[in-house]
Amino acid sequence: MTTRSWWGWGNVEHRVVGAERDKLLSRVAQFLDNTELVEHTAPNPHDLKIEPPRISPPPLLRHLASTSVADRAGHAHGKAYRDVIRNLRGHVKSSPDLVMRPENESDIVAVLDWCADRSITVIPYGGGSSVVGGVEARFDDNRPVLSLDMERLNRVIELDRTSRAARIQGGALGPELENQLRDHGLTLRHFPQSFEFSTLGGWLATRAGGHYAMGGTHIDDFVESMRVVTPVGVTESRRLPGSGAGPSHDRMFLGSEGTLGIITEAWMRLQDRPQFRAGCSVGFADFMEAGQAVRAISQSGLNPSNCRLLDPMEAFINAGSTSAGGVLVLGFESADHPQDEKLRRALEICRDFGGTTTHDSAQEQTASADTWKSSFLRMPYQRDVLAAHSMIVETFETACTWDRWPALYQAVSAAAYQAMADLKITGVLTCRFTHVYPDGPAPYFGIYAAGHWDEALGQWDHIKAAVSASLITHSGTITHHHAVGRDHRPGYDLQRTDLFADSLRAVKSTLDPKGILNPGVLFDA
Amino acid sequence: MTTRSWWGWGNVEHRVVGAERDKLLSRVAQFLDNTELVEHTAPNPHDLKIEPPRISPPPLLRHLASTSVADRAGHAHGKAYRDVIRNLRGHVKSSPDLVMRPENESDIVAVLDWCADRSITVIPYGGGSSVVGGVEARFDDNRPVLSLDMERLNRVIELDRTSRAARIQGGALGPELENQLRDHGLTLRHFPQSFEFSTLGGWLATRAGGHYAMGGTHIDDFVESMRVVTPVGVTESRRLPGSGAGPSHDRMFLGSEGTLGIITEAWMRLQDRPQFRAGCSVGFADFMEAGQAVRAISQSGLNPSNCRLLDPMEAFINAGSTSAGGVLVLGFESADHPQDEKLRRALEICRDFGGTTTHDSAQEQTASADTWKSSFLRMPYQRDVLAAHSMIVETFETACTWDRWPALYQAVSAAAYQAMADLKITGVLTCRFTHVYPDGPAPYFGIYAAGHWDEALGQWDHIKAAVSASLITHSGTITHHHAVGRDHRPGYDLQRTDLFADSLRAVKSTLDPKGILNPGVLFDA
Repeated sequence: MTTRSWWGWGNVEHRVVGAERDKLLSRVAQFLDNTELVEHTAPNPHDLKIEPPRISPPPLLRHLASTSVADRAGHAHGKAYRDVIRNLRGHVKSSPDLVMRPENESDIVAVLDWCADRSITVIPYGGGSSVVGGVEARFDDNRPVLSLDMERLNRVIELDRTSRAARIQGGALGPELENQLRDHGLTLRHFPQSFEFSTLGGWLATRAGGHYAMGGTHIDDFVESMRVVTPVGVTESRRLPGSGAGPSHDRMFLGSEGTLGIITEAWMRLQDRPQFRAGCSVGFADFMEAGQAVRAISQSGLNPSNCRLLDPMEAFINAGSTSAGGVLVLGFESADHPQDEKLRRALEICRDFGGTTTHDSAQEQTASADTWKSSFLRMPYQRDVLAAHSMIVETFETACTWDRWPALYQAVSAAAYQAMADLKITGVLTCRFTHVYPDGPAPYFGIYAAGHWDEALGQWDHIKAAVSASLITHSGTITHHHAVGRDHRPGYDLQRTDLFADSLRAVKSTLDPKGILNPGVLFDA
Repeated sequence: MTTRSWWGWGNVEHRVVGAERDKLLSRVAQFLDNTELVEHTAPNPHDLKIEPPRISPPPLLRHLASTSVADRAGHAHGKAYRDVIRNLRGHVKSSPDLVMRPENESDIVAVLDWCADRSITVIPYGGGSSVVGGVEARFDDNRPVLSLDMERLNRVIELDRTSRAARIQGGALGPELENQLRDHGLTLRHFPQSFEFSTLGGWLATRAGGHYAMGGTHIDDFVESMRVVTPVGVTESRRLPGSGAGPSHDRMFLGSEGTLGIITEAWMRLQDRPQFRAGCSVGFADFMEAGQAVRAISQSGLNPSNCRLLDPMEAFINAGSTSAGGVLVLGFESADHPQDEKLRRALEICRDFGGTTTHDSAQEQTASADTWKSSFLRMPYQRDVLAAHSMIVETFETACTWDRWPALYQAVSAAAYQAMADLKITGVLTCRFTHVYPDGPAPYFGIYAAGHWDEALGQWDHIKAAVSASLITHSGTITHHHAVGRDHRPGYDLQRTDLFADSLRAVKSTLDPKGILNPGVLFDA
């Protein structure tokens, strides 16, 4: 049995402690000029000053409702750095009045009817892993707030082995749905970093990016059909492998972040479990040359599953390896046929740009991949222990076309270091590619800085604003796969047209005429 | 120099005549019990009774306008069977009052302003190849109609070699844009059957499917950003290889069929020209087993460029080959690396389902591919000569998941033959897969029947209604890549929810408040 942390990432039992913590802190200390890091601990949620709920559930819905303080506090924030710091400090002001856990679609209809009738704001809640304020009741008005926790709708309802597709409920967490598919030899093969603590519905509502670099990785592309409960009724698309009949129903709800409806279930395209693998790490002398190698690979049609370029600082912090120009983790996999020839060709391309293979034995390859994978899944836990030690730890993820990549990298780097200089704090910027496309990379930047506990949020805001502005100025997107939520609104508002916002607003007025669903994300009412 | 046919497909100079016609007619006669086929010819457009235009262009737009009878008659219909028959008979009732050919975006803004002000209906017109009534002024009201012909916006404006992308104007026909890309060694590699006579803007507005079976073939997936002029202003998305910032702007306009705005330009993802090819034809003893082979290939990750399964009748009519269970045309191509190993593995899969390779030499492979390609591009011309000989020639294209494919095939076949029996006419149904997906095929059905000239349209309607109903009943889509237009509305209305139609209507009210853009396609105002 595990217990979800009310204030930070994941399970209490898995937090970073002991030797893991000491090693992490000593590694970090190396680039923080040995700034002293003082640890802070989270209060007991029962000691928080949480206002009593302003509403109580109607009798017929009472069995779905929770008003426990720990539950409400646990649903107040997502898992952004800002959320963790506020929780550690006991600043929990946006607790929902109620948490409701529907057991089926009828329950959701009943909850939405009640909320529309009573002008109660509804925040759809999947795994609660939002790092963009997507599940936070950050409102100016005085409406009561209900957090609609989908955790009980967690089943694979139907499986079509012939077409390799399954009908899955929106509240299923990654491991829950994969466990139900495993017996059939199938997998959704969608592994975002939040995998353990995020749901299918959340992935769909935020257009989640999977772990893999190319090809089948985005949740968008795995959708065969989608069923959505809106405040005015249910809408569902037909199960189809492809269709050119009008604009896509599903693409309207993908990325709608809980503003248009509750995604109760979806038919998802599955894959056979991979049997053939080939992988390698490649070192580079120059990071920009490494980027060119990745560009060439991305345009070759080889479509590697992994094509994760780590800059030297990222490779050092998260994979413990040193390289002047960064490390490229390359991997191919298939359920049907060997991948060695593809790897051979990709390495040939790497050599054209000065890449040298650093691991050769199958054992070393596996060890390297395992190091990365375990590091990848530990990162959010590490973020928490660093945050608790007054550090500012933040990520920025974006995408840009290849022609703009060198300038964007320089600009983000300059903006981040200038922002830290403004604050007179020591820190580093790291970069890796999480995904690559033939027309550009999806760079993912990390900030690790020695903050001052009392000013950490202001410092975080300053860095976040500076880097976000440089992303937008240099032709990036404010988010590639973390969603917009409330925190990315300033950047998002700059990158999309007012006419498109007006169009989304018009759809919302149609499907959610009382405006009860997650107001404030994506656009103002 | 070539001359576009006012009444039928393509160029006058390329119509089917002489030996090609005789061969086609004699091949067709074999399954039509030698029904006598009488040829009909199209009238001179100047002899048509075309009403004088109800509007005249304002002085500042006069240089863009045409009121010539041939021009107006040529813009009255698309290129559906029904259109061809009506043209041949001289029944041209929906000529637009004006044809306008803007030279730039400002012209479009000026035209839309004028039309909104004067309540003139605007039909966006690309290559005019719609087979679904998408460009026809089929209205109950008495509003004047303007056909907005985009042919002068036909340039590749900007090219980014690094990211392999180009900014292309919406009015560029397939050959026009490919010619401009060829010098750079790049290609959009989007080859719908209408390639020569359809435009980028038309492809985007109708979610066109390309010639290739899998992977990069749909125009949707090649869009990096899109610029749209609506009656209330211009909206444009940021050039990005990927983004999770809210619902996709571009996917809202993809498939909007001219109802939301005019697609003036788009940044499109390009590809290097292929250098490596491997291909083969495979014969099968049983068509359903052949389908299983295709399913296995579609789920293997091999992603063939061609994976065109022809049923025996399709193979006979369009490729001149005989096979008890149909022929699978398989092909792989790459700009980067050899494809022979992929072909070898695909053939291994085919053999598991009883497939036998019918062509072995490279020469024969090329000959077979060439036969198919030339036949493919000639099909619409052949349709015209058959229609002029009183035949009913129609296509139905759909998609369904693999689990439903056998039942759908049986149902469509039964519905088509029953409809022909109802009419007491002789004919055949053919089937091929135009595209395949891991979760299902996109079957394309053809009807070749001996119609009665005086009743051809009623007969066509009867067959079309019967087959369309069976597509919807058996879990298909009313269109996989021909669009909805006006002709597919009954089926489309059944397959999408009212809530989604309401949502689209809300977007239209926002972007086109006077409702001037292409009313009647997709949904009623």
